[in-house]
Amino acid sequence: MARIDWNKGRVEMIHGSGGRAMQQLISELFAAEFSNDYLNQGNDGAVLPQPPANSRLVMATDAHVISPLFFPGGDIGCLSVHGTVNDVAMNGAVPLYLSAAFVLEEGYPLADLKRIVQSMATAAKDAGVAIVTGDTKVVEQGKGDGVFITTTGLGYVAEGIELSGANAKPGDKILVSGFMGDHGVTILSMRESLGFESELQSDTQALHDLTAAMLEAVPTLKCLRDPTRGGLANTLNEIAHQSGVGVHLQEAQIPVKPVVASACEFLGLDPLYVANEGKLLAICPAGQAEQLLAVMRAHPKGADAAIVGEITEDPNHFVQMTTKFGGRRMVDWLNGEQLPRIC
Amino acid sequence: MARIDWNKGRVEMIHGSGGRAMQQLISELFAAEFSNDYLNQGNDGAVLPQPPANSRLVMATDAHVISPLFFPGGDIGCLSVHGTVNDVAMNGAVPLYLSAAFVLEEGYPLADLKRIVQSMATAAKDAGVAIVTGDTKVVEQGKGDGVFITTTGLGYVAEGIELSGANAKPGDKILVSGFMGDHGVTILSMRESLGFESELQSDTQALHDLTAAMLEAVPTLKCLRDPTRGGLANTLNEIAHQSGVGVHLQEAQIPVKPVVASACEFLGLDPLYVANEGKLLAICPAGQAEQLLAVMRAHPKGADAAIVGEITEDPNHFVQMTTKFGGRRMVDWLNGEQLPRIC
Repeated sequence: MARIDWNKGRVEMIHGSGGRAMQQLISELFAAEFSNDYLNQGNDGAVLPQPPANSRLVMATDAHVISPLFFPGGDIGCLSVHGTVNDVAMNGAVPLYLSAAFVLEEGYPLADLKRIVQSMATAAKDAGVAIVTGDTKVVEQGKGDGVFITTTGLGYVAEGIELSGANAKPGDKILVSGFMGDHGVTILSMRESLGFESELQSDTQALHDLTAAMLEAVPTLKCLRDPTRGGLANTLNEIAHQSGVGVHLQEAQIPVKPVVASACEFLGLDPLYVANEGKLLAICPAGQAEQLLAVMRAHPKGADAAIVGEITEDPNHFVQMTTKFGGRRMVDWLNGEQLPRIC
Repeated sequence: MARIDWNKGRVEMIHGSGGRAMQQLISELFAAEFSNDYLNQGNDGAVLPQPPANSRLVMATDAHVISPLFFPGGDIGCLSVHGTVNDVAMNGAVPLYLSAAFVLEEGYPLADLKRIVQSMATAAKDAGVAIVTGDTKVVEQGKGDGVFITTTGLGYVAEGIELSGANAKPGDKILVSGFMGDHGVTILSMRESLGFESELQSDTQALHDLTAAMLEAVPTLKCLRDPTRGGLANTLNEIAHQSGVGVHLQEAQIPVKPVVASACEFLGLDPLYVANEGKLLAICPAGQAEQLLAVMRAHPKGADAAIVGEITEDPNHFVQMTTKFGGRRMVDWLNGEQLPRIC
């Protein structure tokens, strides 16, 4: 069996065939980088310990098809860990395990694949999750696009925590954990070679530690969401619909970096519709909003948190916003395509 | 918002953008077909009940990139359920939940997507598993190949059941649940338009009920595996390696349908290396082999089961076979590419 050339080698169809070459790729790359007791069981799937008494399970999945695969602030590898860790965390759970399934395109450089896998391994370690099982498939050149990664996360949610987009009630406050739109604008700016790239960076990060701090301090928290595809606007429209309420935002309170605002203006985008990969929004009773804000601001991942609006009674489930100039406008669902393959 | 044209419509980039069109596709197709209490929570992930006391969790994942998407005996939809249900079941677990992540190619007919999703829904219902959470991404035409589906399965394994490819000991018997090679030969024959298609059919099916019956009757069972990519030969080489043993097969005992044998001869394939999607191999102590065989044969999915060989002591971890003609040959790992995109 030939040795794998990690410098100049490329993904070949044989790496997905189930034979020795696939075993070699798995053992030298995936098993080596992700190594942990569960993955090392070496069976088709992992056996995991009984969860803590009285906890429930949380399961979430994300397919990642971002283009380009590498971008300022991250790559598809760490993104595929953060995205799913965050989905689990938004249910109020402690993320513990991930599965990872790769669809590789024939001809993709193995050196780049290795960078991606190493980035995943680092992100998983940083987030305290183990990649416990996986799968690798290879498709012919022109039938894929480099690397697609689907991760599925598993975590445990403690008794008494009941977060849902259906929990919002009129009067509740809406908070965000920081600047909106960084991720999406970074990707689009890079894709279009707009020249903003030097100042822009994706916010991709795992938020499980921020959510844990928030839940510990304010157990009356009603809903957590990470506003990814479709941004803050779509996430709030979803929640308004799920809870049967309206939303009233204060534009002046929504944190947007000046460079992101400029890039958005240039690109004809609204930062409220642009994807974030390391930010969350929270809904809590008005009485706890200031306390929650203080807890978020005390955490490094929530330093720029803000109260951005409140839940209203509205039989139409509209999301509305008081603009910086004092006017009022609708913040409707995103209707058209804004940013394809942003995550 | 325009209505979705389920007859002539096609997947558009907008169906992956996180906006209203994506919500519409999710609610009219995925949520409608897969509907269950967990999926209907409508959050980014599902909260699932506490597993039974003293059970452990089993997590397994499979990316499905089979081409063609529809084939005699099944399609990528049911295959993506069976493949992961079987991986969970091979760990001795009861499969309960699945996540499903779709990577759709722009331009793919919505009518075909609907057939695939309906097939998944039926397969999940038949296997007693709920599709509890999911994700949908869309890539540009020429950056994917119709539909890729990654499923992740979750199940519970009862106390005392400890299956692993590392458990095999010299003297143990090796059983298979039925005819080998049906799935792979069906796909390749169809792809090459060989004309065998009318007689061939994929064996894709969920095996959780067969494994449950086997474990109930013979709790000393040591290992279960579904010989998918790379077939029986690679699976046995993996086990030999994991357990540090050798394998001795009896070719005359390995069930292969005459039409599969003919197609293999024509294609220059060895049925031992060809993928199965509805068959398993089991390893058990010699003293329980006849009892296990009887239990398997009494089950509709194991009617053609056979004892095909035994585990040997071999420091080289070779898989060897006594041929039908009384000779002896090596059954090595698959070295080359045999069948790309078989699952």
